[in-house]
Amino acid sequence: MKKLLFGSLFFMAVSGFAQSNDEQMLKDIYKYALTNSKCYAWLDDLSNKIGHRLSGSVGAEKGVVYTKQQLETLGLDKVYLQEVMVPKWVRGEKESAYILDKKNKISVPICALGGSIATPKEGLTAEIIEVQSLKELEILGEAKIKGKIVFYNRPMEPENIETFKSYGHCVDQRYAGAKEAAKFGAVATIVRSMNLRLDDFPHTGTQSYGDLPKEKCIPTAAISTNGAELLSQKLKANNKLLFYFKQSCQNYDEVLSYNVVGEIIGSEHPEKIMVVGGHLDSWDLADGSHDDGAGCVQSMAVVELFKKLNYKPKNTIRVVLFMNEENGGKGGKRYQELSQANTENHIFALESDAGGFTPRGFFFECDNPNFEKIMTWKALFEPYLIHSFVKGGTGSDISPLTSAKIVKAGLKPDSQRYFDYHHAANDTFDAINKRELELGAATMTALVYLFDQYGID
Amino acid sequence: MKKLLFGSLFFMAVSGFAQSNDEQMLKDIYKYALTNSKCYAWLDDLSNKIGHRLSGSVGAEKGVVYTKQQLETLGLDKVYLQEVMVPKWVRGEKESAYILDKKNKISVPICALGGSIATPKEGLTAEIIEVQSLKELEILGEAKIKGKIVFYNRPMEPENIETFKSYGHCVDQRYAGAKEAAKFGAVATIVRSMNLRLDDFPHTGTQSYGDLPKEKCIPTAAISTNGAELLSQKLKANNKLLFYFKQSCQNYDEVLSYNVVGEIIGSEHPEKIMVVGGHLDSWDLADGSHDDGAGCVQSMAVVELFKKLNYKPKNTIRVVLFMNEENGGKGGKRYQELSQANTENHIFALESDAGGFTPRGFFFECDNPNFEKIMTWKALFEPYLIHSFVKGGTGSDISPLTSAKIVKAGLKPDSQRYFDYHHAANDTFDAINKRELELGAATMTALVYLFDQYGID
Repeated sequence: MKKLLFGSLFFMAVSGFAQSNDEQMLKDIYKYALTNSKCYAWLDDLSNKIGHRLSGSVGAEKGVVYTKQQLETLGLDKVYLQEVMVPKWVRGEKESAYILDKKNKISVPICALGGSIATPKEGLTAEIIEVQSLKELEILGEAKIKGKIVFYNRPMEPENIETFKSYGHCVDQRYAGAKEAAKFGAVATIVRSMNLRLDDFPHTGTQSYGDLPKEKCIPTAAISTNGAELLSQKLKANNKLLFYFKQSCQNYDEVLSYNVVGEIIGSEHPEKIMVVGGHLDSWDLADGSHDDGAGCVQSMAVVELFKKLNYKPKNTIRVVLFMNEENGGKGGKRYQELSQANTENHIFALESDAGGFTPRGFFFECDNPNFEKIMTWKALFEPYLIHSFVKGGTGSDISPLTSAKIVKAGLKPDSQRYFDYHHAANDTFDAINKRELELGAATMTALVYLFDQYGID
Repeated sequence: MKKLLFGSLFFMAVSGFAQSNDEQMLKDIYKYALTNSKCYAWLDDLSNKIGHRLSGSVGAEKGVVYTKQQLETLGLDKVYLQEVMVPKWVRGEKESAYILDKKNKISVPICALGGSIATPKEGLTAEIIEVQSLKELEILGEAKIKGKIVFYNRPMEPENIETFKSYGHCVDQRYAGAKEAAKFGAVATIVRSMNLRLDDFPHTGTQSYGDLPKEKCIPTAAISTNGAELLSQKLKANNKLLFYFKQSCQNYDEVLSYNVVGEIIGSEHPEKIMVVGGHLDSWDLADGSHDDGAGCVQSMAVVELFKKLNYKPKNTIRVVLFMNEENGGKGGKRYQELSQANTENHIFALESDAGGFTPRGFFFECDNPNFEKIMTWKALFEPYLIHSFVKGGTGSDISPLTSAKIVKAGLKPDSQRYFDYHHAANDTFDAINKRELELGAATMTALVYLFDQYGID
């Protein structure tokens, strides 16, 4: 009895001490992030000195050089590049489009979707038919579709609190719309931008022709939400409307690019690897400050903070800036291949690819015992207003990592504004709030710290 | 035993039913707010058709007329105005200021603080001395201060998670800086803007000369944070620097204005009043979309939603758009006086005056039994990511309401971006995200609904 009592008092003392140590560490992390982290200055450089970083572009290569250089200033144990072959798609000259309503020519803002082919040089004019879904194509059939432009106009649902849910319910129109419409003889597709607000920005994004033969592929573009509303309204008044658009985008052969990697080698378990990352490539319409410059500099901040706070992790912490998330995911796949080839042991992976907004929590992919363990850390985050620890998809660059024991996490920022900027010309540095970005970096660092301390089961 | 069992089963069934009723009601509230509420369109009108609404201005009067008209379209039981005398302060022509560093004249952005007197017509030039606090004045004393401009330069602390805390730690420099420096013979004061980021916007706000005799009052202005950094840096190099500024603001006699009130009379307890409100006046540098156009249209949305969802409250719901929160608080005081004169019974008051950002929760002022009751509702808000129910200051317009039994609440939006816009020329409609505004309106409506259903103890 006495022994037991002593034992449990000892345990309480230790666990109380550990708790207050952790509280102090989180305080230090948040304070450093909000007062001294370089993450905002890094993003300023990436966005304003380098600009867009579409895979295969000069900007992407400059981004590789810049982030590698910056990681080298942090005193990490290793900084290196991983070679990866990536697609190269080039938009060419700015697209143009108009609605031809009897004698009126009404300009509307469009942009080619990533991977799309060009229209003929002189552009393409055809009747346009509005649909709300891929399914509707089957109902209409070739008779109604052949020779026409298919206009996908199902909006994102405003009533979902999590905007990624609305995106998930809509994005098939963009991703598979051209491939599916081509099967019914459509000559092109125009898709309503994945944007919850009404504005004049067309939003690009990847699309896939799947295994459609080359000669069957048709050009596809996004139209701004205001443009989509106008087009739909004009079609209601005149269903023989013509639509004209012109784009000169081109697919080239794959080119060599790189993932950028930095490491602090674990003091106790150097063989156990914890990855934290975002993607260095962006779309080409803007500098991609939210998608995903933010995730890159936040990931870099994790190792910056550990070094500045003189925290020596037990496990190896590896920051990875993945190339080509947007139109191919080649960087994430390459990372996993190399990891497998080197028989590496990944115990944890954390991705930030949902914008540099106020952090709200994390998504987790893990088994229940680990999730229960993670939930015991939640109270530590309350002073920082981090409250949402939920199971869910974590991130596409870490998705190829599939060892049985790995715990995966995705930073979950507030999602209300994300689709105002996503893949559009306004995803620029001025849309970033410094504090929100830094809070995200601190929140990621805090989670990595807790995993490093208490491991996984 | 059998009876008891039956009783508790019955209770469980009823409470389960009530719970699912509440869940459904919150679903309806959030869905309507995100798909159909007029609150964003109202704010567009207030901001872009009417513009700034400083007490005593033409804009303020237009705001009164407009919001009364809009409330009249909602089918409320009563819409009326409450007369209130308010201060009238007019900025006059745009201020100018420069640092005189030997032969260099460096322009810096300033704006007069609300209530300040003008400089002489030709402006005012004097040596300038930097301090970090009101206390420092005492240490320096009249010998060092007399004849000089005092420059308050203590920045908002970046490390606090709740930015209002940092504001609270700084705002004495703005509010009492002139009065205190005048006592030591200063000829004017310049205060670093209450802004967490470095930019070129000077932020105005109210200041008070207290009981300083009129002839002792000195002009006071805010300088942008970039301007403050520059001035401080120049002072370090040359502490004999001169500073020039000119402002022509003037105080006039009080004028008649109004609180705008709309009511749904309670179906069971018409005598029990639940107030929900924001303030209709704004500062004059911008249209005050966040401060506090947002709070006004969110409060209007509470009664809009109840009417549209055909919810008939048990208690009287009164929306109040208070006049003159910014520079006098006369509307809030007047509301309380009238309430007292009419021996009204207020059971609940909810204010929204912290910006139209993503709602995170509420602050509450109430006794512990009521707080415990409120905490039982928290789970209902989880699907909407509303998680922070804490005790704390709720709002200045409802602060005069002090009956023993009243529960007061303040909407708690995410505060990271608030001081980027607060009282500055960029507090405009484009800084509002429609969804964030609507989520705030829904969150307020949900709380009013629960109070109406389950009352207070």
